Amino acid sequence: MTLPQQVKIVEVGPRDGLQNETAVPVEAKIALVNALAKAGLSYIETGAFVSPKWVPQMADSAEVFAGIERQAGITYAALTPNLKGFEAAVQAQATEVAIFGAASEAFSQKNINCSIAESLERFAPVIAAAKAQNIKVRGYVSCVLGCPYQGEVSLSDVAYVAETLWNMGCYEVSLGDTIGVGTPLHAQRMLSVVAERVPMQNLALHFHNTYGQALANIASCLPMGVATIDSAVAGLGGCPYAKGASGNVATEDVVYMLHGMGIETGIDLNNLVQAGADICRHLAHGPRSNVAHAMLAK
Amino acid sequence: MTLPQQVKIVEVGPRDGLQNETAVPVEAKIALVNALAKAGLSYIETGAFVSPKWVPQMADSAEVFAGIERQAGITYAALTPNLKGFEAAVQAQATEVAIFGAASEAFSQKNINCSIAESLERFAPVIAAAKAQNIKVRGYVSCVLGCPYQGEVSLSDVAYVAETLWNMGCYEVSLGDTIGVGTPLHAQRMLSVVAERVPMQNLALHFHNTYGQALANIASCLPMGVATIDSAVAGLGGCPYAKGASGNVATEDVVYMLHGMGIETGIDLNNLVQAGADICRHLAHGPRSNVAHAMLAK
Repeated sequence: MTLPQQVKIVEVGPRDGLQNETAVPVEAKIALVNALAKAGLSYIETGAFVSPKWVPQMADSAEVFAGIERQAGITYAALTPNLKGFEAAVQAQATEVAIFGAASEAFSQKNINCSIAESLERFAPVIAAAKAQNIKVRGYVSCVLGCPYQGEVSLSDVAYVAETLWNMGCYEVSLGDTIGVGTPLHAQRMLSVVAERVPMQNLALHFHNTYGQALANIASCLPMGVATIDSAVAGLGGCPYAKGASGNVATEDVVYMLHGMGIETGIDLNNLVQAGADICRHLAHGPRSNVAHAMLAK
Repeated sequence: MTLPQQVKIVEVGPRDGLQNETAVPVEAKIALVNALAKAGLSYIETGAFVSPKWVPQMADSAEVFAGIERQAGITYAALTPNLKGFEAAVQAQATEVAIFGAASEAFSQKNINCSIAESLERFAPVIAAAKAQNIKVRGYVSCVLGCPYQGEVSLSDVAYVAETLWNMGCYEVSLGDTIGVGTPLHAQRMLSVVAERVPMQNLALHFHNTYGQALANIASCLPMGVATIDSAVAGLGGCPYAKGASGNVATEDVVYMLHGMGIETGIDLNNLVQAGADICRHLAHGPRSNVAHAMLAK
């Protein structure tokens, strides 16, 4: 048991969060990214270069990248599922890019009409292009603790996809409980199996809070040594498979827990709560963060 | 590390929950208690016999006890801060009673105008009367992870109050994070210190979710062997010290986690979610449970 002394928070609110919310003005997105940087986030997934037909909420990502005030030392990342997206991300001067595969065969077939193996092959040219331009690539694995279509997902499938992304050249693999169904022992077992194939220091947890379990799962995995956590300010992002339910675990709640455990994040919680409250003024709901509610109520 | 095979849920929604909500009709309270029994809860804190001037929401507890359909094997408990309350609870045929002390001197002074030691002395006649009538007494300790007035609370104060209640004759001591500020390591340390004085099998965790930490704290403490968890259906009960913030951890979220960990509770989650949705129709907010939202959204 080796609790990390520091945890890197990968803030996915502007991308994974806002792509599952009603559209917000580009100025609000830019203000959000700048506010997150001011709050001390060192890694901000800023946008995605994907088909605007599929994800209209991300159609203005180039404008977001063009509008932000870049700070030294901060990674402004972009999701790029293919070479066209990668080139747009380079054009937009994204610091690094991310790709993602599913651990569930049914999810892969339903979402991108191909097998897991085929989907991974499609990333090869993206990774090659990134390597040629010295741009780091982060890999996501979705459905690591369950799938909206097939239900259970075998841990060996999770480990296979994670290891493949790692072997293909991703410097970090983020393990996503896309539908937020996992519980602590399952999360621990999953992380343990994957960590046999990919070094723990190159793994991240990306848990959604659909069933309220995300923080418990993170708390249960931290003593295993994992030190990178994905989260979204204000818990941005609903769950497309259970409309009205919660999305990403809230960065505020993760940071509160980590600080309470004596783990450093470099983040100022007051500024973070303010950033979440500000973006929620453009949405039909308040922050999906208990810490935000408690601090704003005072 | 000995994860329990079974966990007893102490459902505090009708009392600790509803006493911090706007008043609901007595018929709705009765229906709630009956629905909780139907969902498989074996312990339901049904009401409180306290001054109606201080806690008007509990003024109809005698009517609630009179109106419920009692099921064999279910404990219908009442909070009784003094002998007068105890006698009313006996009159109402409460199965057992509960008393509570604070681990924070400032909280005790502000709330009941006396020291911790004095407050504990006042419980002696209640415990003596209960013993004489063969009625079990449960003891609460509030502010075990922090106090709204003094901030930090020493673990030795928590252990002192818990041990005193135990020595006075309480068969179980429930450790309350009244303002929901605790985080996992703090919760573990607190439980560890108290368990040196009171056997683990006689301890319960009573965590509020004000800062979203309750489930993470419970998950972190379960491997220590604690096997009784207090929670409130629909997360009933706000936080009087941060208006608009969350109250008790939601029973639905706790049960979902426990079942996911292979721990038995005897509770039917679907019936439980329905019970929570029904009582919330009398309140200005929906269930404060992610599990409830996710299940109701499907």
